[in-house]
Amino acid sequence: MAACVDKWNPAYSCHRISRSIYRFMPDCTVTAPAGAPVNGNGGDEVWEELYGEMVHCFLYYKGFLALQAHRAAHALWSEGRRPPALLLQSRASEVFGVDIHPGARIGGGILLDHATGVVIGETAVIGDDVSILHGVTLGGTGKACGDRHPKVGDGVLIGAGASVLGNVRIGDGAKIGAGAVVLRDVACGTTAVGNPAKPIGKKAAPSLRPEEQPGVTMEQRWSDYVI
Amino acid sequence: MAACVDKWNPAYSCHRISRSIYRFMPDCTVTAPAGAPVNGNGGDEVWEELYGEMVHCFLYYKGFLALQAHRAAHALWSEGRRPPALLLQSRASEVFGVDIHPGARIGGGILLDHATGVVIGETAVIGDDVSILHGVTLGGTGKACGDRHPKVGDGVLIGAGASVLGNVRIGDGAKIGAGAVVLRDVACGTTAVGNPAKPIGKKAAPSLRPEEQPGVTMEQRWSDYVI
Amino acid sequence: MAACVDKWNPAYSCHRISRSIYRFMPDCTVTAPAGAPVNGNGGDEVWEELYGEMVHCFLYYKGFLALQAHRAAHALWSEGRRPPALLLQSRASEVFGVDIHPGARIGGGILLDHATGVVIGETAVIGDDVSILHGVTLGGTGKACGDRHPKVGDGVLIGAGASVLGNVRIGDGAKIGAGAVVLRDVACGTTAVGNPAKPIGKKAAPSLRPEEQPGVTMEQRWSDYVI
Repeated sequence: MAACVDKWNPAYSCHRISRSIYRFMPDCTVTAPAGAPVNGNGGDEVWEELYGEMVHCFLYYKGFLALQAHRAAHALWSEGRRPPALLLQSRASEVFGVDIHPGARIGGGILLDHATGVVIGETAVIGDDVSILHGVTLGGTGKACGDRHPKVGDGVLIGAGASVLGNVRIGDGAKIGAGAVVLRDVACGTTAVGNPAKPIGKKAAPSLRPEEQPGVTMEQRWSDYVI
Repeated sequence: MAACVDKWNPAYSCHRISRSIYRFMPDCTVTAPAGAPVNGNGGDEVWEELYGEMVHCFLYYKGFLALQAHRAAHALWSEGRRPPALLLQSRASEVFGVDIHPGARIGGGILLDHATGVVIGETAVIGDDVSILHGVTLGGTGKACGDRHPKVGDGVLIGAGASVLGNVRIGDGAKIGAGAVVLRDVACGTTAVGNPAKPIGKKAAPSLRPEEQPGVTMEQRWSDYVI
Repeated sequence: MAACVDKWNPAYSCHRISRSIYRFMPDCTVTAPAGAPVNGNGGDEVWEELYGEMVHCFLYYKGFLALQAHRAAHALWSEGRRPPALLLQSRASEVFGVDIHPGARIGGGILLDHATGVVIGETAVIGDDVSILHGVTLGGTGKACGDRHPKVGDGVLIGAGASVLGNVRIGDGAKIGAGAVVLRDVACGTTAVGNPAKPIGKKAAPSLRPEEQPGVTMEQRWSDYVI
């Protein structure tokens, strides 16, 4: 597999860049299992030794890598160093297909699953423990400056290909269905689906525990959805 | 054009990897025409000589390359060699924007057209002669293990940007419209469109010949669709 | 940031290719402001010197780069040099995630915003001052030859993830909403949204000035949209 591990390896480059800026990676929540399985059958010893849940996100998950690139870009942007911040954004968009404006403020424990085609705008704000599938847009409207992108609460799950447009608020624990086009606020604990998106079902109990939030359970079924 | 043909050429790398593992490429159905046209006008002799329908899929079609990378990854995965299988998946996702879990089982004669943004989950099963446009998701739900991804029959056509979620069954010869969000089974020979997807029109005649299947004809019009 | 500026820099390569073919870049409409701000704080002098609106599109905007690659590919295609034209298309699809058939005819002043996942077919025609968001498909149907892709007028705005299928006509100054699936003609100055797309609101005044066209204002709100 050596041919695949060239010296331009984006995993290594991104890790090195982010390591020099961050001492803390808020999305790296996986833990190395004691005695990671070794199941090699010759020829892959190096990879087998590395094997373990801990290294997965560095080796395989471009969503994780793109997010760390964004955190580096955001740190540069916050210091007023716009050119290198925009360069990092552009490289992440070319290499990973994930286009996050360096001005966006993103919490910890984020999962960008599959990640291809994700676009997040400059004034977007994302809380903690949010899961965002591939092809999701948190977009603005017009060429106006100012606060024009979505505000996403904690524990939110946004399904594949959904578009959330304008300065709307997605409440804590809300679910956005795959392919939904959201143009209005979505209340805490509710589910919005369709094009344009409408709320469905009952509001979730407000006492939802952190580990039951949609962004954590990744439950994408709309159990009370009547087609 | 030499600047574009660098030594990291993914076409060549993928071809070499897949050639060492496969003696048979089930998706390579094009044939070299006798006397391929030579229409160079200086400076491109090498490319002109190579020109012919036969080499198109190796040189130009990233969907084909991504699919062969998946076949190699699937062979590794089936032998229990998870790290190199996941590495191949990750590289294909970065280079081609096509994220196919190495556990997915995919038949022969598959076309991934344009291919950017395609995501196929671990327990998905795809039959023969299926055409899948760009931006299509065959996704699961939740973090549960087990059989949680779609089962797609023979001769199916899935339009651009469609999402098929959960362990649903898409029957032989069915058509899924562009942008459809499919949450329930789709019967053989029917067409499903919309968000959420609903069946439209009449069921196709069960005697549909292989060359008339939607996955082969690529007929994406919904002739009996009333807006 | 030197690690990110390797010798395979696609920005530089694409610029060199397009410069050798074009003496005129119809999409490069930004102007260098007199006295571009210099706000470096050490270590980025080179980038700071380069800083200015003028260089943004060359350094950061993969949509612009992909479009220039298409213009080069289209010039080759028009001369009957199909192999290098298809090679450029394929490389742009791999590097930028933008798949434009070299036969497509595209006007000036085009913006491909974010750009990931854009697919434009062979017989598509796009006017001037059109803005196309990421994930947009201008697609055909079937494997038939002939004129089978959309015709897009001047000043049109097409929202993120929208699909326009078949030989339909999008009139001057029309707006297509995010995630819309357009299967029929859209009249001048109207807005079409939904899956399948339907016209909403009133037709815009026919005297819309060029600087008020949706493709220029990027106004993506559907002000008279009732969910």
